[in-house]
Amino acid sequence: MSKPIIIYGHPVSPFVRKALIALEVKGVRPSSIVPLTPVISSDALKDISPLRRIPVFQQGDFTLPDSSVIAEFLDESLDGAALYPTDSKIKAKARWFEEYIDTHIAQYFVFQYFFEKLVKPSVLKLETDDARVKAAEEKMPEILAYVEENLTEAGYLLGDTPYMPDFAIGFMFQNAGFAGWQCDAGEYPKTVRLLSALNSHAGFKKVSQLGADLLTARRQEIESVLKAYLTN
Amino acid sequence: MSKPIIIYGHPVSPFVRKALIALEVKGVRPSSIVPLTPVISSDALKDISPLRRIPVFQQGDFTLPDSSVIAEFLDESLDGAALYPTDSKIKAKARWFEEYIDTHIAQYFVFQYFFEKLVKPSVLKLETDDARVKAAEEKMPEILAYVEENLTEAGYLLGDTPYMPDFAIGFMFQNAGFAGWQCDAGEYPKTVRLLSALNSHAGFKKVSQLGADLLTARRQEIESVLKAYLTN
Repeated sequence: MSKPIIIYGHPVSPFVRKALIALEVKGVRPSSIVPLTPVISSDALKDISPLRRIPVFQQGDFTLPDSSVIAEFLDESLDGAALYPTDSKIKAKARWFEEYIDTHIAQYFVFQYFFEKLVKPSVLKLETDDARVKAAEEKMPEILAYVEENLTEAGYLLGDTPYMPDFAIGFMFQNAGFAGWQCDAGEYPKTVRLLSALNSHAGFKKVSQLGADLLTARRQEIESVLKAYLTN
Repeated sequence: MSKPIIIYGHPVSPFVRKALIALEVKGVRPSSIVPLTPVISSDALKDISPLRRIPVFQQGDFTLPDSSVIAEFLDESLDGAALYPTDSKIKAKARWFEEYIDTHIAQYFVFQYFFEKLVKPSVLKLETDDARVKAAEEKMPEILAYVEENLTEAGYLLGDTPYMPDFAIGFMFQNAGFAGWQCDAGEYPKTVRLLSALNSHAGFKKVSQLGADLLTARRQEIESVLKAYLTN
């Protein structure tokens, strides 16, 4: 792949960070990141993303929405470490976990907890809907139990190697963490061990740091934070 | 794959029919279909489907939820005609279309239109929420325009061969049709041509007929309708 790659989407979104980690694992850096968000940049997204979702991958005239679709495409078209297992049954489980994470975990940890507790008051200057936060908090134990139960003794969901669903969990939980959530090490030891292992993964660390830096960046600092990421 | 295959999920669900057409295309017949629905059989689903969704694929001790994940698994593990294109860019487009169909088209054509107009009054003995039907009808033109725009001159979304997203559109629209919806041939000629082509596809025809037969079957007839499908 020789043409420059553009990622559309603000890396404060865990879905955008999924696309960035997929590129990191493949050893490919995008040439630019355009920090759009569905809330603020809906019209700009319309032409490249039919559901106005982020991220969108673009290379030449090839445009592709959806973090999981992008990750599978990169895994099939680029060399570098694998983003998914090769055994068809284990790969199917990986896809199922990623679907569970991107819909169910995202719903409660990101769209309800993170969005209500942080995005609404800090970015949109709207009031938090406490009932939606409470509903998320009530759902979290069931979700955490499912993750804990499915983590292998070897450390990750599919064995001793992190694949896309492991990274996806890391980013979803990171956003809940931005809004104050912490994973209870007594209740969920394997999950805490996963999050700790991810934070020692060079690519994950770099991409999650970008998310954290952008969260606190002032508007006029965004470009330089992105540039530092893209050139380091 | 030698162990018997069980599909959990009522084939009135377009997602269950997606799993069945995937098996049809591969020339494999499940040994049984267990007609659970999320609305009625939530507890029975809990152990095999974390989000209590249908379909669930089972073979021996291997259990897999999600129609798209099942289809990719079957495509990778079975011989027979392809369910997805092989070129990585075109395959990525297929996955994106399937995601769009399973979330966005399903939301309006199935969960709002079909569910409100047919399932609620006929099955659940509940009143239709007319506002939700109206909201679906208002969204349909935008969705149909997107489908029409993306259908190729060769007849299908990805060229001259039907793949999973084409079948998925067929089944979603079939459910809206159960509730009285019709596709306007003047406005959406390529879409009507797609639906007509699908109805000449032996596997699609068989699976869509099963859905239609079960829709009108009385409770005591369900087993024999399923048995006829499984043994024909």
